[in-house]
Amino acid sequence: MFMFEKPLGMVDTLPNLYEVKKNTRQAMTKTIEQWGFRFIETPTLEYYETVGVQSAILDQQLFKLLDQQGHTLVLRPDMTAPIARVAASKLYNNLYPLRLAYSANVYRAQQREGGRPAEFEQVGVEFIGDGTTSADAEVIALMVSTLKEAGLDNFKIAIGHIGYANALFKEVLGNQERADVLRRFLYEKNYVGYREHVKGLSLSSIDKDRLLKLLSFRGDIDKVEEANSLVSTNEAQQALQEINQLWSTLEEFEVTNYVKLDLNIVSHMSYYTGILFEVYAENVGFLIGNGGRYDHLFEKFNRAAPATGFGLRIDRLIEALNVEVNPQLQCVIYSPERRKEAIEHANELREANKRVVMQEISGVKDVDAFTRQFEEVIYFIGSRKEEL
Amino acid sequence: MFMFEKPLGMVDTLPNLYEVKKNTRQAMTKTIEQWGFRFIETPTLEYYETVGVQSAILDQQLFKLLDQQGHTLVLRPDMTAPIARVAASKLYNNLYPLRLAYSANVYRAQQREGGRPAEFEQVGVEFIGDGTTSADAEVIALMVSTLKEAGLDNFKIAIGHIGYANALFKEVLGNQERADVLRRFLYEKNYVGYREHVKGLSLSSIDKDRLLKLLSFRGDIDKVEEANSLVSTNEAQQALQEINQLWSTLEEFEVTNYVKLDLNIVSHMSYYTGILFEVYAENVGFLIGNGGRYDHLFEKFNRAAPATGFGLRIDRLIEALNVEVNPQLQCVIYSPERRKEAIEHANELREANKRVVMQEISGVKDVDAFTRQFEEVIYFIGSRKEEL
Repeated sequence: MFMFEKPLGMVDTLPNLYEVKKNTRQAMTKTIEQWGFRFIETPTLEYYETVGVQSAILDQQLFKLLDQQGHTLVLRPDMTAPIARVAASKLYNNLYPLRLAYSANVYRAQQREGGRPAEFEQVGVEFIGDGTTSADAEVIALMVSTLKEAGLDNFKIAIGHIGYANALFKEVLGNQERADVLRRFLYEKNYVGYREHVKGLSLSSIDKDRLLKLLSFRGDIDKVEEANSLVSTNEAQQALQEINQLWSTLEEFEVTNYVKLDLNIVSHMSYYTGILFEVYAENVGFLIGNGGRYDHLFEKFNRAAPATGFGLRIDRLIEALNVEVNPQLQCVIYSPERRKEAIEHANELREANKRVVMQEISGVKDVDAFTRQFEEVIYFIGSRKEEL
Repeated sequence: MFMFEKPLGMVDTLPNLYEVKKNTRQAMTKTIEQWGFRFIETPTLEYYETVGVQSAILDQQLFKLLDQQGHTLVLRPDMTAPIARVAASKLYNNLYPLRLAYSANVYRAQQREGGRPAEFEQVGVEFIGDGTTSADAEVIALMVSTLKEAGLDNFKIAIGHIGYANALFKEVLGNQERADVLRRFLYEKNYVGYREHVKGLSLSSIDKDRLLKLLSFRGDIDKVEEANSLVSTNEAQQALQEINQLWSTLEEFEVTNYVKLDLNIVSHMSYYTGILFEVYAENVGFLIGNGGRYDHLFEKFNRAAPATGFGLRIDRLIEALNVEVNPQLQCVIYSPERRKEAIEHANELREANKRVVMQEISGVKDVDAFTRQFEEVIYFIGSRKEEL
């Protein structure tokens, strides 16, 4: 019964897709390296207390197991916490700012058949120890460059700032619990629910309007001005100022045609602390990556630092790219007495960068059917060359 | 307490080693692709009943966990069983022989601090559906080519045949239990223990001699003749004939300078069914990979087929290669007012294939210390160009 089954959300990647994935990964990592980021690798399994607890991923999505000493381990749900661990320990002597990168599978337990993948590959960067908006802009510009080098041109990055909604909610609602309810609607992108909820709150109609207006601060950067007129605290104004600074820096990076404003982005209930963003492939409409500033994670590893970064999902990027590869292979079929000739011929072709299968004829049942899969088939059969 | 800890046997790979590993992997996979093998990827987690049970790895070395449906999952301990699963299901319509390859992390739970890694990367191939010795030879020749392309030249492949020792033990000892004891000594390469044990057996001195002689069948291929004089069953003679056939095929592949005979190789207590081999790096003396024929695995996935393959450990290969990389990065330090110039300059350098960090000066605490890590540093500071 279990012979061919895989656990929920687990997938096989077959040869042609594997090559698309490999090519995509190579283009991405090449770009990231050229921007001076250094790749590291961390273990698949980490202690729950070290990485699981600090992760941005919900506890119920963690794959957990016990080791033989009775400690709880997790399959890493993201790469940010493991990289923070390394930056604060093995790389302690490397000065900030530190530019690190990864290309790694991450794991999220799924509850339903046919749903989301429980294992997928992320390519991303963490830019640690630089709190300037130049750092935020660099990360976004690098992400644009990475996606373009991977072959994607049709994408949009929605950019927001967690500080704006937080400040607005504080001004209008006063307490954290009421703010959390609204934040959750935004997190789930449930704008209908948000509207309904706001309408039901016991607030003045002016305050209700302010909360509802928030939903319109998406699209053009000019909306920052209107957003500014809605708030009075320093915190909110500072958030908008950072957005404006970021925008003019992104203009210098010449990437603003890929960017739009979205002050409704939350991305996570508590992880991000400043500018944050989400990338969408326009033809398919789904999220292929996200990122932002998270200035409090490193405190937890005793090496406090502001930080920003992005993570891109290769599986979704590939779906958006919609490219196919179908590599052409050649085949050399031989009988044992002419093996040496066959080997020499195959080696020559391989040196000319061809992909060549060598196959002894007695190892194949149906030669005709077998050879059909190749672009070209060369035979070295029988003892005399004349028989060719 | 747990802040910086990793589970037993888990390792981080820092930037320079990461690049060595990446370069090594690329050279290996390129070669394997040129020989017409196709790479696939399978999930990290598999059902215990599907892959765990069929794996060549001991049960106590498996990382196990329960999924939310109560099924036991394992972190794949090797890639052979997962590839067999895919070959027998998703690739069912692909004709045999089927040449598949992988580059993947595998997992083996460890019991002791400072011991073996619990997660390491294997690059390998599975050649499925061809029972000829040409197939065995192809796999060995490809392994030689793969190691050479990775930069290793100083290695030896010990080649044996599980059928010979099995047949000799059967002739001399009669029953399986007694044979298993001797097989375990060979498996553990405990030749002293083997000798002691043989001396203590209640056998004629001629039979004891035959068992002891087995230990000398290592080194030159000529020893096959002496090995032949020691046995009388078809099974044993057939094993030696296969070894001879393999050897002459390896001569045609021009790889016999990397190869020696070793009729004591067991590699695993029950997995292999024919020719098998182990690769050693000569300067460090340790095993960097192994492989062989396993003709019974595919029956268990309802698509019976002979098969052979190899797996190489990248971590050990890198240790044997003993190369270092220390990539030279350039740095562009800028102040915001000259950011645009800095971006343009960085882009030009990147287009010329340089690796360039862009850093806003206010994001760095100690500029002198920070810039020391770069090969070259270019400043775009202050508002006037003349200040440079």
